[in-house]
Amino acid sequence: MEGYGLPPALRSLLATLEKLPGIGPRSALRIAQAILKKPTLLEELSQALVEVQTKITPCRECGYWAEAEAGLCMICQDVRRTEPVLCVVKEPADVLAIERSQAFRGHYHILGGVLDPLSGITEKDLRLDNLWKRLQKGAYEEVLLALGTSPEAETTAYYIARQLTDWHGKITRFASGIPVGSELEYIDPLTLSRSLRERQPVYI
Amino acid sequence: MEGYGLPPALRSLLATLEKLPGIGPRSALRIAQAILKKPTLLEELSQALVEVQTKITPCRECGYWAEAEAGLCMICQDVRRTEPVLCVVKEPADVLAIERSQAFRGHYHILGGVLDPLSGITEKDLRLDNLWKRLQKGAYEEVLLALGTSPEAETTAYYIARQLTDWHGKITRFASGIPVGSELEYIDPLTLSRSLRERQPVYI
Repeated sequence: MEGYGLPPALRSLLATLEKLPGIGPRSALRIAQAILKKPTLLEELSQALVEVQTKITPCRECGYWAEAEAGLCMICQDVRRTEPVLCVVKEPADVLAIERSQAFRGHYHILGGVLDPLSGITEKDLRLDNLWKRLQKGAYEEVLLALGTSPEAETTAYYIARQLTDWHGKITRFASGIPVGSELEYIDPLTLSRSLRERQPVYI
Repeated sequence: MEGYGLPPALRSLLATLEKLPGIGPRSALRIAQAILKKPTLLEELSQALVEVQTKITPCRECGYWAEAEAGLCMICQDVRRTEPVLCVVKEPADVLAIERSQAFRGHYHILGGVLDPLSGITEKDLRLDNLWKRLQKGAYEEVLLALGTSPEAETTAYYIARQLTDWHGKITRFASGIPVGSELEYIDPLTLSRSLRERQPVYI
């Protein structure tokens, strides 16, 4: 956004907003306009940011969002989660997506990304040491790799699986296939071929 | 966004982010994830918000964004803007759009919205008193109403024009017509009919 009579403080707010994911110059401007028009909204946003800054910390066990006081996230604290499966995901938002399905009662491990040498993300940038430790000491019988289906994610899953050849438990991944409710004609060939290869018996 | 182990501070940040224009639950989550992953970004955003809160104020003349110290925006301060035209717009972002065209060298007046009785926006909610004052004392010879083409905007333009029947200057609006670079076949019938009615001579 060029000058056009914009005061410097506003220009630097726009520049910061544009660093947020999914926010371009136009949305940044719309957001800045909205919060400048409504001082209560500006105040509320400021306040909310200070709150998360002081009160939220990565869970020391799994890396998910935890209250700073507790240090452990609500999922790790939940004694009713007894499924002996550790589900490895990329980011906290992935946990939310899986939790929404209400189909998983084990624990999570947030990797913080996937191996991506071209972007400079190597083993050291991921929470891998912590993962090995949890698997050694924990009562897990299965590692479920839920890192997505990008080439980088598949490589990372393969890397983790290889590191775990001596581990006693099972190593699994989410099934690839046709999304529930989708029409066959709209499915890409790769998904379709996987879904054919991994076809399941029909029980009646 | 339901529970799913989200700490309260984070849940309230998500709720606040969702109040921003164009931000839904998914984008709010992506933004929260990004700023929690990168503490420097959180700090920077916090800082930028405090800055605009203390340093930006509506220009006391036109209502555009001004530095609090000056009280007047850069456009009102610019002595080279001598075109005796006052351009009335809805919001500060409209000023930016017009400035980008570099085709206008007069002053602006930000109304802060348009009359919309159904949403409870009446004369008192707009910067109209200030507009009458500026037109009485100012050296303007023309009021250019650039409020947009929604029914509410047209009503507001009509309302302003009627209040100004005794005023000495011209009252104008932006031409409606075919956007430069558009194909005729994609233009809606209303725009096309206006553009036909207001056709212009071709000079060679």
